[in-house]
Amino acid sequence: MVIVDVTVIPVGEKTSVSKYVADIHHVLENSDKNIKYQLTPMSTIIEGELEDLLQVIKEIHEVPFKHGMGRVCTNVRIDDRRDVENSMERKLKSVEKRM
Amino acid sequence: MVIVDVTVIPVGEKTSVSKYVADIHHVLENSDKNIKYQLTPMSTIIEGELEDLLQVIKEIHEVPFKHGMGRVCTNVRIDDRRDVENSMERKLKSVEKRM
Amino acid sequence: MVIVDVTVIPVGEKTSVSKYVADIHHVLENSDKNIKYQLTPMSTIIEGELEDLLQVIKEIHEVPFKHGMGRVCTNVRIDDRRDVENSMERKLKSVEKRM
Amino acid sequence: MVIVDVTVIPVGEKTSVSKYVADIHHVLENSDKNIKYQLTPMSTIIEGELEDLLQVIKEIHEVPFKHGMGRVCTNVRIDDRRDVENSMERKLKSVEKRM
Repeated sequence: MVIVDVTVIPVGEKTSVSKYVADIHHVLENSDKNIKYQLTPMSTIIEGELEDLLQVIKEIHEVPFKHGMGRVCTNVRIDDRRDVENSMERKLKSVEKRM
Repeated sequence: MVIVDVTVIPVGEKTSVSKYVADIHHVLENSDKNIKYQLTPMSTIIEGELEDLLQVIKEIHEVPFKHGMGRVCTNVRIDDRRDVENSMERKLKSVEKRM
Repeated sequence: MVIVDVTVIPVGEKTSVSKYVADIHHVLENSDKNIKYQLTPMSTIIEGELEDLLQVIKEIHEVPFKHGMGRVCTNVRIDDRRDVENSMERKLKSVEKRM
Repeated sequence: MVIVDVTVIPVGEKTSVSKYVADIHHVLENSDKNIKYQLTPMSTIIEGELEDLLQVIKEIHEVPFKHGMGRVCTNVRIDDRRDVENSMERKLKSVEKRM
């Protein structure tokens, strides 16, 4: 599985963007793709196949436009590891056992 | 047009990654999508329709795996502005005329 | 408080970087700055005053060099909101109450 | 030398941010640090010593706040390579000679 870490910043309205983040999570909740996701204070982390993740990123990037925003800046970090079976859970455990 | 700024970091080999950057540019050169692209010292900037750009990002993210790398971290900044006709050229001009 | 989301990618060794992430957390644990931090599967999120956070980012960016790495790519997202008292906790609550 | 690639996104006003980018370049132009910088359609790239660069990032991150903005999201990619003498020029040449 590939893991992506996404932030969607609507530009041009007001400082609070929590409305969009909540809507983004509705999109993830109702997605027909085989994904896992997790909300952090700074981003949404999504796990799945790369093809599905790119499709999902496209959908959540659209959310602020549906609310009438004129510009959206989306930042994506893709972590794609193919030498082991990667997952959000495995990554955290791998660090924790060294702490 | 949407503009994306992409870095592809292969993890797990040596410090020089210029080989991959050159290969990524061969992919862009030979792409059948309607895109423009520009190399900077820190990233590759690509202009086109969002659907095409996501497809292109997927292709260039594959490049280090084709060279046998086990992990690739790709970072993408998407700038999607729909209230004006956006382009790399327009963005630079817009700043320069204020300088 | 400002919130930053940091990834430190050592370039040029092997695919597993959990050793560095664990060491980065030792640095944060022993920091004399007034910071809070949280590990996610994709990054480390740190909350504090901007001046302190930049100092801390500098320290954790050094970690892989101390292990002999030749190149480190660090990615930082700074979220600095001054119209409300910002915090990791407030951001999550703000989204959750809209879900 | 270390190279950083910085975007400063003011959140909460209008879609055009070219005014801030121009002001950021005035800050860089008048900086007393030993830095080089370059404007791209997606970011500002700055070369110098890491300590100086972090100070400069702090200054340019302040620019939108000076114009009354309530929230600023700054994104920084640090490329710090210590096994060779790194520079923006060297990086570009290193790719170009492989093309």
